[in-house]
Amino acid sequence: MDINQMLPTILQKNNIARIENRKLLIGDRRRYPFALEFVRCSTVGQIGDALKAMVTQGGGPLQVALTTMQFVARQIALNEQEDSLRTFSDASQILSNSRPTNTTMARTLATLLGQIVLWYTCESVKESYNSDLVEFVDQLIETVEKRFDEDYLKMGKLGSTLIDDGDSILTTCFAEHSLFLSLIEAKKEGKEVQLFVPETRPYYQGSRLTAPSLVEIGVKGSVITDTTGISLMREKKITKYMTAADLVTMDGTVVNKVGTLANAIGASYYKIPYTPFAMSPDATKEGVEDIVIEIRDGKEILKNSSVDTLDALYLSFDIVDSSLVDKIVTPKGIFKPDEIKENFGR
Amino acid sequence: MDINQMLPTILQKNNIARIENRKLLIGDRRRYPFALEFVRCSTVGQIGDALKAMVTQGGGPLQVALTTMQFVARQIALNEQEDSLRTFSDASQILSNSRPTNTTMARTLATLLGQIVLWYTCESVKESYNSDLVEFVDQLIETVEKRFDEDYLKMGKLGSTLIDDGDSILTTCFAEHSLFLSLIEAKKEGKEVQLFVPETRPYYQGSRLTAPSLVEIGVKGSVITDTTGISLMREKKITKYMTAADLVTMDGTVVNKVGTLANAIGASYYKIPYTPFAMSPDATKEGVEDIVIEIRDGKEILKNSSVDTLDALYLSFDIVDSSLVDKIVTPKGIFKPDEIKENFGR
Repeated sequence: MDINQMLPTILQKNNIARIENRKLLIGDRRRYPFALEFVRCSTVGQIGDALKAMVTQGGGPLQVALTTMQFVARQIALNEQEDSLRTFSDASQILSNSRPTNTTMARTLATLLGQIVLWYTCESVKESYNSDLVEFVDQLIETVEKRFDEDYLKMGKLGSTLIDDGDSILTTCFAEHSLFLSLIEAKKEGKEVQLFVPETRPYYQGSRLTAPSLVEIGVKGSVITDTTGISLMREKKITKYMTAADLVTMDGTVVNKVGTLANAIGASYYKIPYTPFAMSPDATKEGVEDIVIEIRDGKEILKNSSVDTLDALYLSFDIVDSSLVDKIVTPKGIFKPDEIKENFGR
Repeated sequence: MDINQMLPTILQKNNIARIENRKLLIGDRRRYPFALEFVRCSTVGQIGDALKAMVTQGGGPLQVALTTMQFVARQIALNEQEDSLRTFSDASQILSNSRPTNTTMARTLATLLGQIVLWYTCESVKESYNSDLVEFVDQLIETVEKRFDEDYLKMGKLGSTLIDDGDSILTTCFAEHSLFLSLIEAKKEGKEVQLFVPETRPYYQGSRLTAPSLVEIGVKGSVITDTTGISLMREKKITKYMTAADLVTMDGTVVNKVGTLANAIGASYYKIPYTPFAMSPDATKEGVEDIVIEIRDGKEILKNSSVDTLDALYLSFDIVDSSLVDKIVTPKGIFKPDEIKENFGR
């Protein structure tokens, strides 16, 4: 099943990242849904800068990173970069440092590098590919993408089992493949649901990415301000709270876009289950003390709201303690927070 | 003591509303701090429309209503309106209907009308003013304003007793006179405090009104997104939560700008006291079932954030149940929610 045909525009692989005319194109989520535009990068440095500048976000940087490895292989084939493992490891480092909180990209790149090492150190690998680096890297990436697609589909199937006909689901930010595939599956099963979509300041991922994507898949969604979900819980208008998770640590702590904690506490107070989706809990992180929270420039808030001479503080992500989490949907199953370590630990 | 000289620009009476060249001018809080501009109204209908359009908000409409009564008296004196009680009652109704949730304006207008009745029905009243309606109404308004100023000052004194040196106070929206006079008093007493100021979507009263006003009174303030206060509570960076209250009912239920409930639940979860300021709890409203929540056009959220073809829901105010409220600062004293009725009931 081609996952791309099921997904809304902004989640289709070609619209997240692709290579075209010797450039790597990144779908500009800051411009969507006003326009479907791309930032064109000629170097890995430019790609890193684009990630820092929030051209894409959430799971977007992971797809960009995979495509960047293919882009680097092509640059080497064209003699635009040195043919060495170093070229790949430098690229990997630039990308991994661009967004510190979500570690899926960094961990995936580390695994890929471990395989690219074989190309440079093991003659038999090179021979089996007729010395074509591009083909070798493309095949590596294809394998990774295929596994991710399978994982997304599994999470969609699992997520849909948690969705009941008549549900009114609050989300935060843009929960991407896992939530959307769950909704698509639930719809296929005849379940009618509606979503309430916090706009998600200051980048508006809710009103700009989630809400238009819901329109595409034919699920009712209403944009609200970031704190309105809790008023709706008070009025018994929310039955479930579901988000993505940028990071899950071994003790079941969840990290996700700022706003997630407020809603999780509200959900706990009003006895509504909070279920995040996590593709890969991070076995290298035991708990809170291992989490790096990205603190972005406070001016990013002021740009849309007031004069830039004021002081401002922008914590990009929330830490949600495991006691506030009901269950976590992963590709391996739906787990309670205290079951994460036994299923994902080293 | 002239309260105006102590207050930041946007809270000074002349900048909230004034009469100039046969027009009523309303300070445009939607444009501040980019500019200090005024919307000029020639009729009471235009004034009502300006209030609906959020030209001013919070306690602003109350000051506009007082000035409107003076404006109407002048229109009558110039034969631009009929010289009748009806002219005043029509004006009062237009204003009262313009913003349904905060009832202080409506209740103050009702009291004023009760006194204007005397002008039209009691010859001795008219005689004592030498038949000058403008002078009569001006004197009524002056008395009301003087009482409000005294009440604000009392709340400032009381509020400052709740502020400790080193406090880090979270607020919501723009808590106007009561919070600012509390901060000014606390500062005078040598207490150093800092505020965290949620920007307050979609009109940004936090980043546009509160934050620049804090700069004016020399208190440190940092703008944050609307859900960040709860992350800061989690990090033990907030010691108090203080807001205005658009409405307090007899059972101690607090109504205030959307966002107030999320922070109040967060404060309860992290054991931080929540103290709203309320000039006049409403004796006509027993509890939740008597509250009218203003539901504004969802397009007001989308205007700043996404395409306007989406569905959106904008609940302007939050209802905070009394169990989440620590104490309420009023001009009569600082009370627990369950002490409101005995102090303000009929």
